Amino acid sequence: MPLNLPRTIEFVDGRVRFINQLKLPHALEYVETSDWRRVAEAIRRMEVRGAPAIGVAAAFALALAAYHTRARVVDEAWKELEVCAEELRRTRPTAVNLFWAINRVLEAAKSAGSVEELRRAVVETALEIQRADEEANRRIGEHGESLIGDGDTVMTICNAGSLATSYYGTATAPLYAAFERGKRFKVLVLETRPYLQGARLTAWELHRVGIPVKIITDNAIGIVMQKERVDLVITGADRITRKGYVANKVGTYPLALVAKEHGVPFYVAAPTSTIDLTIERGDEIPIEVRPGSEVTEIYGVRIAPEGVDALYYAFDVTPPKLVSGIITEKGIVYPPFEKNILKVTT
Amino acid sequence: MPLNLPRTIEFVDGRVRFINQLKLPHALEYVETSDWRRVAEAIRRMEVRGAPAIGVAAAFALALAAYHTRARVVDEAWKELEVCAEELRRTRPTAVNLFWAINRVLEAAKSAGSVEELRRAVVETALEIQRADEEANRRIGEHGESLIGDGDTVMTICNAGSLATSYYGTATAPLYAAFERGKRFKVLVLETRPYLQGARLTAWELHRVGIPVKIITDNAIGIVMQKERVDLVITGADRITRKGYVANKVGTYPLALVAKEHGVPFYVAAPTSTIDLTIERGDEIPIEVRPGSEVTEIYGVRIAPEGVDALYYAFDVTPPKLVSGIITEKGIVYPPFEKNILKVTT
Repeated sequence: MPLNLPRTIEFVDGRVRFINQLKLPHALEYVETSDWRRVAEAIRRMEVRGAPAIGVAAAFALALAAYHTRARVVDEAWKELEVCAEELRRTRPTAVNLFWAINRVLEAAKSAGSVEELRRAVVETALEIQRADEEANRRIGEHGESLIGDGDTVMTICNAGSLATSYYGTATAPLYAAFERGKRFKVLVLETRPYLQGARLTAWELHRVGIPVKIITDNAIGIVMQKERVDLVITGADRITRKGYVANKVGTYPLALVAKEHGVPFYVAAPTSTIDLTIERGDEIPIEVRPGSEVTEIYGVRIAPEGVDALYYAFDVTPPKLVSGIITEKGIVYPPFEKNILKVTT
Repeated sequence: MPLNLPRTIEFVDGRVRFINQLKLPHALEYVETSDWRRVAEAIRRMEVRGAPAIGVAAAFALALAAYHTRARVVDEAWKELEVCAEELRRTRPTAVNLFWAINRVLEAAKSAGSVEELRRAVVETALEIQRADEEANRRIGEHGESLIGDGDTVMTICNAGSLATSYYGTATAPLYAAFERGKRFKVLVLETRPYLQGARLTAWELHRVGIPVKIITDNAIGIVMQKERVDLVITGADRITRKGYVANKVGTYPLALVAKEHGVPFYVAAPTSTIDLTIERGDEIPIEVRPGSEVTEIYGVRIAPEGVDALYYAFDVTPPKLVSGIITEKGIVYPPFEKNILKVTT
């Protein structure tokens, strides 16, 4: 039975169709457009979010620009592409996948000798980026699903789900693969303040597929492991150092610490492109500090007294000693990470 | 300079005046009444909350009933008191302090030989309960303030503040005492989902007093200890076993675990009446499970997909190995708790 999981973003016949994630979990609404500017706007407004999904969206925006160009000569088409790329780069300036995808598409288009060649190179490269994203996720699923047993309870945080990618997700990939193989298990997802991606997005996609899911507050990780059986934790990752330090959504590190205390295996699921070999230690990873107002207001209602601000780090760093393994598209990497990470990256 | 800290609840000349905490942090509004039923309603509606404050409010409700009785004979006045007590018992059935305060007032009134004697016994006992609450908190402050140094950063969770008591608070008592002695320090308070007592109440009272305070999400405990200097954690307690297991607001246990990992002292501030000598282990403490809807809705806005529920334990249990000390009105109790708790309770 195919997974009842809608595609986050698609490119078909010169049109891009994507889920407006701002409407979730209340409504599943698609936006369909042939205008690359609308896709750029979707990235900026976070209708599309999640690093891999942003990369694919940027590639598809360039594909729209090339597909619909009225340029007669290749230089003119190339200039249009550069305008598009420049606007895309300004949408989410910290998203690494965005820049990587843009550069890869431009690189492919560079040597085109005609408008038609450029068009074909751009569209094919964009589609290839989407296929590679999905393929990596499916392999993460294949490698990771063996960790999940029938009747298990799995815990996760934030949305490293299908919605954060073009399809299937990273942390959710082992769940979907296990579910497709007929395993039955349940998931507890941390709501993930302040943006509540766990409650809004991960709960939505798991529920839709038919995987039983319950939400817990981020501070409930302790009592839930004291009171309930939890068999496994799987989270995504934003960046992994060569020694195995994992930067991920704020709250991941306390979750790993509580899991360790209760003997619950803690796995990270991420493609090898997440591994940054240029840095070793966790404190070398820059951690984004965002406006306190994103914490002190919920749906426009202020929760803090006037004059009191919040301190909001968007990510934290989990040290390798708390990580049981890293599920990549090339297999599960086990400790010692310093040695074994190199085996999947070189 | 006196602390700019309004009294949570007062009994003056046959009237009770209390802060309506449902209006905080947006407005400081008082309710003033001579009707004991209005005080019972305030407890039920959580206009007054926090175990010690609820106990004082119940005693004051009985004091209003006795003060304004039109009974001519003592038996009649006693019957009115029993009606009042019965209604109070139904307001928050799990609050231990509520029952304790009601019983203490009734006990004092039992032997009254006249309406006037009953009236005096009830009012004086109620005022004595309030004075004893404040006195215990001030002593907790005196014992605990030495833990705080100039320039320190202190972390706390939920509201074990002045608003949870008649005045001065428990976890906040060392902060207020240190501040009154001229020490300058700052506080980071966890917002404390789902009810946000940290963001709404603790931040409000500290800010009002002039103690610099910032809010963090509950999941930020890890990154904040990775990035910022934190010198001390102080929390309240709902119940402490004779071996030193501490039941407190959900999120306290992960906070203690992260503090231990980072070498940050973790103290619990609570009067000795919080210690339950009848139980030893943490898993003997009943943990209230509340409706998932209290998690899945924030200010009336649903954050979860339709059909997805939350699992909501309201408290967790911190094991004694993570507790540096328990600050009581009789002094700070240090490990081994099994031995030293008996010294302050017997």
